Amino acid sequence: MPFAEVSTDIITQFTAIVGNENVIVDAEKRFAYSHDETEDYSFLPDVVLKPTTPEEISAIMRLCNQHHIAVTPRGGGTGLSGGALPIEKGVVISMERFNKIISIDELNLQATVEPGVITEVFQNAVKEKGLFYPPDPASRGSCFIGGNVSENSGGPKAVKYGVTRDYVLNLEVVLPTGDIIWTGANVLKNSTGYNLTQLMCGSEGTLGIITKIVFKLRGLPQKSVLLLMPFVTNEEACKAIAEIFRAGITPSGMEFFEREAAMKTIDYCEKIYAAKVTTQFPENMDAYLLCELDGNDDEVLMRDAERVMAVVENFQAGEILFADSELQKEELWKIRKNISPGVQAYSLNKAEDVVVPRANLPKLIVGIKQIGHRYGFNSVCYGHLGDGNLHINVLKEQMSDEDWNTKVNDGIAEIFSLAVSLGGTLSGEHGIGIAKKPFMNIAMREANLHVMRGIKKAFDPNGILNPGKIF
Amino acid sequence: MPFAEVSTDIITQFTAIVGNENVIVDAEKRFAYSHDETEDYSFLPDVVLKPTTPEEISAIMRLCNQHHIAVTPRGGGTGLSGGALPIEKGVVISMERFNKIISIDELNLQATVEPGVITEVFQNAVKEKGLFYPPDPASRGSCFIGGNVSENSGGPKAVKYGVTRDYVLNLEVVLPTGDIIWTGANVLKNSTGYNLTQLMCGSEGTLGIITKIVFKLRGLPQKSVLLLMPFVTNEEACKAIAEIFRAGITPSGMEFFEREAAMKTIDYCEKIYAAKVTTQFPENMDAYLLCELDGNDDEVLMRDAERVMAVVENFQAGEILFADSELQKEELWKIRKNISPGVQAYSLNKAEDVVVPRANLPKLIVGIKQIGHRYGFNSVCYGHLGDGNLHINVLKEQMSDEDWNTKVNDGIAEIFSLAVSLGGTLSGEHGIGIAKKPFMNIAMREANLHVMRGIKKAFDPNGILNPGKIF
Repeated sequence: MPFAEVSTDIITQFTAIVGNENVIVDAEKRFAYSHDETEDYSFLPDVVLKPTTPEEISAIMRLCNQHHIAVTPRGGGTGLSGGALPIEKGVVISMERFNKIISIDELNLQATVEPGVITEVFQNAVKEKGLFYPPDPASRGSCFIGGNVSENSGGPKAVKYGVTRDYVLNLEVVLPTGDIIWTGANVLKNSTGYNLTQLMCGSEGTLGIITKIVFKLRGLPQKSVLLLMPFVTNEEACKAIAEIFRAGITPSGMEFFEREAAMKTIDYCEKIYAAKVTTQFPENMDAYLLCELDGNDDEVLMRDAERVMAVVENFQAGEILFADSELQKEELWKIRKNISPGVQAYSLNKAEDVVVPRANLPKLIVGIKQIGHRYGFNSVCYGHLGDGNLHINVLKEQMSDEDWNTKVNDGIAEIFSLAVSLGGTLSGEHGIGIAKKPFMNIAMREANLHVMRGIKKAFDPNGILNPGKIF
Repeated sequence: MPFAEVSTDIITQFTAIVGNENVIVDAEKRFAYSHDETEDYSFLPDVVLKPTTPEEISAIMRLCNQHHIAVTPRGGGTGLSGGALPIEKGVVISMERFNKIISIDELNLQATVEPGVITEVFQNAVKEKGLFYPPDPASRGSCFIGGNVSENSGGPKAVKYGVTRDYVLNLEVVLPTGDIIWTGANVLKNSTGYNLTQLMCGSEGTLGIITKIVFKLRGLPQKSVLLLMPFVTNEEACKAIAEIFRAGITPSGMEFFEREAAMKTIDYCEKIYAAKVTTQFPENMDAYLLCELDGNDDEVLMRDAERVMAVVENFQAGEILFADSELQKEELWKIRKNISPGVQAYSLNKAEDVVVPRANLPKLIVGIKQIGHRYGFNSVCYGHLGDGNLHINVLKEQMSDEDWNTKVNDGIAEIFSLAVSLGGTLSGEHGIGIAKKPFMNIAMREANLHVMRGIKKAFDPNGILNPGKIF
């Protein structure tokens, strides 16, 4: 059944719900809501709405459900799989006005926030109270915390502290039918019915619209050390990772990047920040690991750092840089966090996000380069290799559009098949959205997809919410 | 639609699937599968089957689905909410022959096991490799690890290390339709479609039958200290807990028990172990906290222990016992772990398992005693109070059957309402099963239950798997 168009009568009703100033019909203004950071996709919605309460969203959903109008919820627009794009047109609900931190409960180590709060704003508010919200996506300066929940974002700290879903205790959600529910309770453990909270995390806005989030917090670690470790080959770097964990050390960051990623990002950073990068990246090296250790005890940290260095000595590694000033640590993290926009600035690319068991990384990274060689594409690899999550930016460079849309996709399918054959899967933290949807059958059997479709139907009987995503 | 009876023809077909020796029809032998550790419930199944492969279970499910026969999966039979009881008769599938630890992967810190492995057997196998599987239910010596996943079991370590679901990476599941799926991948982070893995955890055997589990493991902490801290009142003990966490300390155990729980359990332990308990529990105290700290560094541990003691000084507490020998630690944990059977041996009881935000525990515990006073029942309280999870054993003692089945249930409903009003919920780790099912509407709105029923239908269109549980 095709979706209905948004008529002027419906617009009038939207206006009655959210007020005139929160209904965007102007085409130029709508355009900003037609794309995110996924390749060059763009889909113009019929109308953009900016509600501020769950009740307003409920009224919108009831109306759209009744008239079979497609609704796409949108956070900060930093998604890398197209999850927030209105591919069936209709309504975009922008969550930008849900931007309040409702409470930070220091006694229970919990916080209640609205989904439109920018992740970094929330991190800093919590930090001011001596507390810690670990998930830290590279886009933290502009992404919304609700988008983080919907895509189950990770970031560098996930290796020690877990991903977004590990911090979500409870969610207020407006269902596609307009019902407003809390998915669970504000508790650390819960065996009371099906875990709707965890089901919502990573469901990419297809099951309901999150309007409040109760997060678990932690105490803030007071100290950290940062090591930049160069390796002669990608494979040697990947091999070292599993051995570091096997030695019983749990770094709070274990980031990998190819030399090419570092070089392109240094160019990019020097341009946008208009400042020279001072860190010297040892030459004649193919890959680097950025290893962070955190805690509250200098001695324990130094002992662990020495143990990491002792492990790395068994591999073909260069001289390790021990970042000893806050300034140098910041510079190294700035480079790491700018790899994605840095590569983006260099060439149109497809950003993949596979994940495998850590010890299978060497086979993965060697295989990816062989596949690229066979299909004729370059790729830049980097990512959170401590938890087995590799980002692969496949570059268009001078490739023809035809090759880009056919040959390259076949190569990417091979990369996914390789990841799955190594016990892994398609996406570690970016989600499926529309960009990875054609590849879902590589990771799942029809029976899985059948169950997922049934779950979707349980929440959204008419299929109006974020249609055409995931499966 | 009523369930079909298990005819002799169906029995013949079951025999063809699992072999004659794995089909139990003898009434006396079936009786062992009619009850668990929940109150005095007993429901006799028509037949008990003991398959050993997912394919056998698949064949059983297809047959039962076709003939509309109720199927109830069963683990170790230690459940406290009746989740494994065949209330609609039909088939019990006992998972006792799925008892293999398939692999312990030291490089990836993962293990793959069958669900019929006894939890303690798995813990020990992992420990032998210097690794750590933290979930530690009191019934670990007889419960099955698959039951732990299905009820999302916790135990004392959950306060620092999380509950069972935090260790589940991937599950092989036979769906009620007979399809066999893996729910996810063997990876630490995953944003590839709906999180079926987490949905299975805590679903109490109503969505599918788990046939393999991939667990995440940790490094084994090498050292621990244990403090027994007496308090003049329950309320003071509860107040101290929140302050200990607020001081930035994360104990690896923070157990609470009333003096009455300790005394009854000491009697019980002295009887069943035929050995005197040597620990002196300070008198004139209403409650005790058992606080464990673990790690790898003696100095850090001693420093944290001193910080805990400094916090406790601000409350009405007695002299703290610092358990300094392995023998004394063992004895204290033995007493803690035997509270449930100890109270059980004393009187028929209803075991509740509410959970609230930690700082609301003082209000909860005071309220529970007031409710008991009003309804005329005694209760023994204990539990994992570091994560806000309180067990309340409501005692029958000399109460009439009529009062037990009506008045007491009204009182329990009030306890649940109190927990929910404090931001908590019905069950932290025991599940809902049949025992808490009448109270679900206290914790959830109809819209929640409606979605849960839809999820159930997506997995089990004919409603044959573990019918009548949860909602």
